[in-house]
Amino acid sequence: MFQQEQSLFVLSLHVIIQYQIMEKLTIIKVGGRIVEEEASLKQLLRDFSQIKGNKILVHGGGRSATKLAGRLGLESRMVNGRRITDLETLQVVTMVYGGLVNKNIVAGLQALNVNALGLTGADINLIRSEKRPVADIDYGFVGDVKEVNTGMLYSLVSWGITPILAPLTHDMQGNMLNTNADTIAGETARSLAGIFDVSLVYCFEKKGVLMDENNDDSVISSLNKAGFRDLVRKGIIQGGMIPKLENAFNSVEAGVKEVVITSANEIGKDSGTRIVKD
Amino acid sequence: MFQQEQSLFVLSLHVIIQYQIMEKLTIIKVGGRIVEEEASLKQLLRDFSQIKGNKILVHGGGRSATKLAGRLGLESRMVNGRRITDLETLQVVTMVYGGLVNKNIVAGLQALNVNALGLTGADINLIRSEKRPVADIDYGFVGDVKEVNTGMLYSLVSWGITPILAPLTHDMQGNMLNTNADTIAGETARSLAGIFDVSLVYCFEKKGVLMDENNDDSVISSLNKAGFRDLVRKGIIQGGMIPKLENAFNSVEAGVKEVVITSANEIGKDSGTRIVKD
Repeated sequence: MFQQEQSLFVLSLHVIIQYQIMEKLTIIKVGGRIVEEEASLKQLLRDFSQIKGNKILVHGGGRSATKLAGRLGLESRMVNGRRITDLETLQVVTMVYGGLVNKNIVAGLQALNVNALGLTGADINLIRSEKRPVADIDYGFVGDVKEVNTGMLYSLVSWGITPILAPLTHDMQGNMLNTNADTIAGETARSLAGIFDVSLVYCFEKKGVLMDENNDDSVISSLNKAGFRDLVRKGIIQGGMIPKLENAFNSVEAGVKEVVITSANEIGKDSGTRIVKD
Repeated sequence: MFQQEQSLFVLSLHVIIQYQIMEKLTIIKVGGRIVEEEASLKQLLRDFSQIKGNKILVHGGGRSATKLAGRLGLESRMVNGRRITDLETLQVVTMVYGGLVNKNIVAGLQALNVNALGLTGADINLIRSEKRPVADIDYGFVGDVKEVNTGMLYSLVSWGITPILAPLTHDMQGNMLNTNADTIAGETARSLAGIFDVSLVYCFEKKGVLMDENNDDSVISSLNKAGFRDLVRKGIIQGGMIPKLENAFNSVEAGVKEVVITSANEIGKDSGTRIVKD
């Protein structure tokens, strides 16, 4: 009996210690425009390099992909903000996301002493997806995430490596698949939520979720699900922001400590909109 | 005195054990044509996946780069087999080598249960280079290798990861640099020669170094430096094969166990030309 109490005490102590030493991990998702222009990229990389502790960067690159596709005489077709990805378009996004944008970021961060490692979901089988089934729309070579290699990601981060994730996955059958960068950031955050105190930061053009779309300073500092539903009903939150926020709520409900929606210029500052569980 | 003898004995034993447990590492370098055509790539990846033990693949991609450059209206200028790399050409090779070709290989190998990880020299600062100084010719953004991150490469390999190296490096100042794939293979082999029994395999169109260029079966099975010099004098070995072989001799002199020149179809077989020290 005494022994049992003692081991319960040791167990509790272990849980307390584990809880206390859970390290912070910051996952930053940045969209195309920021990483595709020389000046804004430089500023972003400087700000990102200043973030202390474990970190991961997830990037887009859609504008560069559209530009290259255009130069190659390929039409870029978007449905609900998603790129219809035929075989030639898949080659374009593999080149632009996995090559041009990713390596530019990696080289830039290495120059700032961040030990960056560029990765697609195919590399070390980091993110496996399945080709999206054809329903009303055939998106082509677009992947829905099925599994994140949590162990490998954890290992990389704990070795002091900073993963730079391109929005590409693979199907374990030899095919690359085009995958939304917001989704990759969310899935990665959720997969690591049991190991780190994950702060997931989505950067976009505005300083956060706005109460008044014409006033850039009307940032809602904190938003829970009831408040979100209320603002959707009132038409204050609409359009592309709705799925973005639903995704954010899914993440906090799955254990991500906080999701922040902010501007790339505000990285590392205590600003933007914080998505909280309650 | 007895103690000294004893410790000498222990030391010798240690050296013997170390020598005996030095693991094998196979580095395969494949050129453009093989990895750029669907059928030959598939065969190569199957053969490569069958190689037992530690392995690294180094690939080219020049033909795809020339093709993409052409579609973008850029002229491909080659001097002594090296691509003059202006800023736009650097973007093309970063996309093609680091994105398209590299990720195709990685996804293909993952499907064959090889835990492939695609890397440029910028990733985890694997290969640092310096922009080639302008002498008679300005090669542009072309890098001469200065340092291979032996420790990181060793770690990756010992974790069961198979590095897939694209012919790109960085200068630690934020710039990617175009770097010859043969050179990357050679430098990588030399950097790991103290840790592994390195076998460096250069694949090209022929089955090996030929005694008679019109007879594909006249492969020289073994070549030392004296034999090489003799064949150069007689005009049997000429052109682009001379720097390739000089590079191979540099590697064996720097401790690489063997350099093999063979055809991609012969990977894993005991054929081709073996470059030996004496």
